[in-house]
Amino acid sequence: MADSAPWITYRPGLKVLDCTIRDGGLINNHQFSDKLVRAVYETCVAAGIDYMEVGYKASPKQFSRSDFGPWKFCDEGVLNKLFSDHDEEKTGLKLTIMADAGKCDWREQIVPRQESKLAMIRVAFYAHQVSEAVQMIEHCHGLGYETCANLMAISTITDVEIDTVLAEIAKTHAEVMVIVDSFGNLYREQVDRLYARYSGAMAGTGKEIGMHAHNNMQLAFANTIEAIILGANRVDATMGGLGRGAGNCPMELLLGFLRNPKFKLRPVFGLLQDHIEPLKSTVEWGPFVQYNITGQMNLHPRHAIQFRATKEKDDYVKFYDQVGSDV
Amino acid sequence: MADSAPWITYRPGLKVLDCTIRDGGLINNHQFSDKLVRAVYETCVAAGIDYMEVGYKASPKQFSRSDFGPWKFCDEGVLNKLFSDHDEEKTGLKLTIMADAGKCDWREQIVPRQESKLAMIRVAFYAHQVSEAVQMIEHCHGLGYETCANLMAISTITDVEIDTVLAEIAKTHAEVMVIVDSFGNLYREQVDRLYARYSGAMAGTGKEIGMHAHNNMQLAFANTIEAIILGANRVDATMGGLGRGAGNCPMELLLGFLRNPKFKLRPVFGLLQDHIEPLKSTVEWGPFVQYNITGQMNLHPRHAIQFRATKEKDDYVKFYDQVGSDV
Repeated sequence: MADSAPWITYRPGLKVLDCTIRDGGLINNHQFSDKLVRAVYETCVAAGIDYMEVGYKASPKQFSRSDFGPWKFCDEGVLNKLFSDHDEEKTGLKLTIMADAGKCDWREQIVPRQESKLAMIRVAFYAHQVSEAVQMIEHCHGLGYETCANLMAISTITDVEIDTVLAEIAKTHAEVMVIVDSFGNLYREQVDRLYARYSGAMAGTGKEIGMHAHNNMQLAFANTIEAIILGANRVDATMGGLGRGAGNCPMELLLGFLRNPKFKLRPVFGLLQDHIEPLKSTVEWGPFVQYNITGQMNLHPRHAIQFRATKEKDDYVKFYDQVGSDV
Repeated sequence: MADSAPWITYRPGLKVLDCTIRDGGLINNHQFSDKLVRAVYETCVAAGIDYMEVGYKASPKQFSRSDFGPWKFCDEGVLNKLFSDHDEEKTGLKLTIMADAGKCDWREQIVPRQESKLAMIRVAFYAHQVSEAVQMIEHCHGLGYETCANLMAISTITDVEIDTVLAEIAKTHAEVMVIVDSFGNLYREQVDRLYARYSGAMAGTGKEIGMHAHNNMQLAFANTIEAIILGANRVDATMGGLGRGAGNCPMELLLGFLRNPKFKLRPVFGLLQDHIEPLKSTVEWGPFVQYNITGQMNLHPRHAIQFRATKEKDDYVKFYDQVGSDV
């Protein structure tokens, strides 16, 4: 037992990424109003947050603009308008988007960094898409962006598949490799094993390890703390935990844990009461029982999302029986 | 990194205590209907839970029977009536109550075990009450009960005070010493230090370490997992997390984590939908923002409970400013 109290000190290299609009957009087809996106932006600045992820760069050839809102596509014109006054130096905030392998026309949609408000591109991919992910990372790096590799759904693949992905990413220019618990399925000891795997594979490359947790089992914050204790220096959170299904690691809890005096909680509470709580009249998110169940059973949250959209949403036993016979 | 996956195996000695009615009673002055208490009891039996805590043995001289319901006093007559058919052997369930130092006429209220439905007495106390707690434990042990020592509010006392309490309890016949995070203030590394302290002090006595967590920072389940990993063999949870303020470790998450095949989740989900969810129309519990704040600030949850009872309950910034200037 070390004779120090790390929970009252801080690690200057630890950076926080807000993905409220990006992950939250999965609830409402990315239809957030400019006013809300701008409120989140201003809160990020006031709270000392390091990165804000504003959406996806999804291909308009694959996804209809009438079905999805602007934050599904993050056109440069939209970004230039809403963030016209954005100043990275002055605010300390960098803007980022997520580009999904297989769903993004990245050669066309991503412009050189000096022509964009964006500073970083996060490349999300499934294990079998790692080759395209590597191309995307190198392409974006060549355009001047910071890059980040987000391997999704790791609770459904084998150790040797994870190792193969990590070996490929280790060779790229990505600054960060993120542990992504898409299904909200990981317990503490599993986070430990994954962290060891990820950091071992990245040893000597200078890359940071990130953590993106989901709250199916009320463990998003705890698993984020765990990754931080182990050494992760890039962590994701959302305001009020807003995000698909059970939601994400809540920013208000994360900033309360971090002790870097640059982080401020008060603006986050203001955003929660004025902008996030009111969303609950139209959309829902949080660790409801059905998400507990899909998390425990290592299932995609879509099963629970679909069930909660029915009139039987409060019938937990029925859902438990259904998924119990599905797996 | 050990070459095993402890998250899919189990420790036979690990026992679960349901304190839904006891801790939940703090929300509604212990006014639960017989029907609800009985439903929780039957769920505990069906789910394979080891202990059910049904309330307090509070002194009727100090507390008015018109202000509080029967589960504040747990008269033997009440227990005999509601649990008339209780059979420890057949059900595998033991009944327990909590006796608070300073608030219980324990010499009169606690009858010999063979005359009672109860199998265990949990003695709760603040550090300065340890001498009475020791007397209570020895008295109850003499009457034939299993006993358990619950030192409360540990986040407000010093290490040397904790050590002094532990040294006194180590000498008693208590079977269990419980780590109690009354304020929901503990992070993972603090749980580790406390566990080392508690288990070190009890080494060689044969006593088990228990964990009673609160959910102010959405860490009740995670901190309970942490204690289990470290070796705690007695853990508390409540159905739906029902409990004062932010509530407790949710039983439905805990049983999902434990892999002892004797534990069954399905009856818990049935109880949640039929009995626990409906309570939300009259009382509230859960990790609301005000509880996040008191947890982070190491304050008693009463500040948050009082604030949430006002019309301003959704004004997070006001509460944050208030408690920020109070501490």
